[in-house]
Amino acid sequence: MEQKDKSWVTSVDVAKRAGVSRSAVSRTFTPGASVAPETRARVMEAAQSLGYQVNILARSMNQGQSNLVGVVITGFTDPFRVALLGEVTRSLSEHALVPLLMNAEDPERLSELLRILLSYKISGVIMTSGSPPSAVATEYLQRQVPVAMINRARDLKGVDVVNSDNRHGGELAASTLLDSGAKRLAFVNTRASSFSGIARGKAFLDHLAPAVAKKRCTAGEYLADAIGYQAGQEAADALLASGKLPDGVFCATDLIACGFIDAARSKYGIDVPAQLQVIGFDDIPMAALDAYQLTTIRQDAGDLARRAVKSLVERMEKFAMPGRLKEVPVTLVRRGTTR
Amino acid sequence: MEQKDKSWVTSVDVAKRAGVSRSAVSRTFTPGASVAPETRARVMEAAQSLGYQVNILARSMNQGQSNLVGVVITGFTDPFRVALLGEVTRSLSEHALVPLLMNAEDPERLSELLRILLSYKISGVIMTSGSPPSAVATEYLQRQVPVAMINRARDLKGVDVVNSDNRHGGELAASTLLDSGAKRLAFVNTRASSFSGIARGKAFLDHLAPAVAKKRCTAGEYLADAIGYQAGQEAADALLASGKLPDGVFCATDLIACGFIDAARSKYGIDVPAQLQVIGFDDIPMAALDAYQLTTIRQDAGDLARRAVKSLVERMEKFAMPGRLKEVPVTLVRRGTTR
Repeated sequence: MEQKDKSWVTSVDVAKRAGVSRSAVSRTFTPGASVAPETRARVMEAAQSLGYQVNILARSMNQGQSNLVGVVITGFTDPFRVALLGEVTRSLSEHALVPLLMNAEDPERLSELLRILLSYKISGVIMTSGSPPSAVATEYLQRQVPVAMINRARDLKGVDVVNSDNRHGGELAASTLLDSGAKRLAFVNTRASSFSGIARGKAFLDHLAPAVAKKRCTAGEYLADAIGYQAGQEAADALLASGKLPDGVFCATDLIACGFIDAARSKYGIDVPAQLQVIGFDDIPMAALDAYQLTTIRQDAGDLARRAVKSLVERMEKFAMPGRLKEVPVTLVRRGTTR
Repeated sequence: MEQKDKSWVTSVDVAKRAGVSRSAVSRTFTPGASVAPETRARVMEAAQSLGYQVNILARSMNQGQSNLVGVVITGFTDPFRVALLGEVTRSLSEHALVPLLMNAEDPERLSELLRILLSYKISGVIMTSGSPPSAVATEYLQRQVPVAMINRARDLKGVDVVNSDNRHGGELAASTLLDSGAKRLAFVNTRASSFSGIARGKAFLDHLAPAVAKKRCTAGEYLADAIGYQAGQEAADALLASGKLPDGVFCATDLIACGFIDAARSKYGIDVPAQLQVIGFDDIPMAALDAYQLTTIRQDAGDLARRAVKSLVERMEKFAMPGRLKEVPVTLVRRGTTR
């Protein structure tokens, strides 16, 4: 093992060993190509004894595509986005596709990495919610690389978007709180919210508007400067310290809801759900813990991923199609933070 | 946008536009190659106007390596492993390397995906803790693809391993509990534990052995059939229902510790830390939440990732080196579950 060169077995080695032409080796490993059974058997035997792997790099050079799909995500701290990455990875593997992971958190590095990614003749790109600008997607589209987006605004032509039904989620939260007697309702989000969080809040407040007009309840909104769990704590400080205690709070994510509940309980001695009901969004694992038992609107990460990958694979076959939108249903999961 | 072919700009297009030879284009984009300044300027201008990306696929065909590094992880549910994946991604990007993500949870798919990975002339592989068998690594090593492992046993020649100092972590947990007056100590782990968890428990019990011999304390171990949070709940049921209440528990992971604490508090009305002290391992974000405020042994995910990537990059330069072991220090983070 002293030589410095990589010891890759090539199709030339296999051809030599099998005593056939290089083209016969190539045809043996090309689905659908014609090759005599005896030749195929000799090639397979030689390939196996040499440990030859069909060189997909060479394959993609010839066919202009690869098994690689770029997956652009924003950080690893949001539990729902992490779960989504897991489901996307799983769905891609069902199509023998492999995710090339791009973290969009570091914008300075991102452009360099995206350039690298472009160089790999990736077969497609999946973008999840968060910050990567649409301009990035445009670069791929110009090169006819299919792009699918999950939980993002539909602002680019020829891109498939798969979103949770945020509108129905916001409406479910509003009607659940109203039905259980809440009178002073609030939506809590982070100021740096994604497209999805904003849509949830709008649907929640729109759905409450008739009741507000009839003075059956009040409805407000708090946007925190912090993000995630800390945003919930900040919102609790702002809303609960004022004395104008809300009694029904819908949070744009479970993480925000957990922060809100912890602060309400430990800093203000508030009984959740007796004095204050809380509903989150996502259904991350934390929501089911004894410490929270959070009522939430569940997003189906598996379904979001499967539909996005399916759209992408379809567009690999036929790039020129109008962009499509799929909305994945959400469901109310009742636990201990509502009455 | 009606044509079906991928519209990749090639070096031939650039050469034509710039009025130079194809070899001049190639030399312009090859670090260290000689090319006249005027030629370089014309090539760069043509490349920019055509949107030409250096074709790294072609590059790796010639040079026998790529910017791709396979990263094998086990699932997306363990928060520490997810954090580690984030740090590995970040560290790789600092070397202009891109992670090809392989989920080892589905062993049936894994072997197919690993074969695909082998075909990409990846420059290296990083394996994190969990189930992928060492046999997988052997396939890469046979092809002189460097392998680095994080938090795994050192059972293969020519592989660099970076581990948290599990022994010191177990000793820290033991001495912290002893020093704060615990008399009936227990280690809690899952039966399906990784190498690291087992090492932590052994160090904990070894460190307690002299005190046990002098009858200053008792020490036991519980291995749950469940994993993660549920393992902690199962252990609490087994240890607390018996009435032989331990008063100092060290859990192999924070997730196990959170499950143990929740069950101890909500099902058995036990006051943590007054009646029972608990120490975890990892320092995942959940440990810092108000609901837990878990005292824990902190692993440095960033340092683990940086050292593993550094080892890998060094071995890309020189494959034939003896395997190296780096141990990354751990630290005690005191919060509210110890006295």
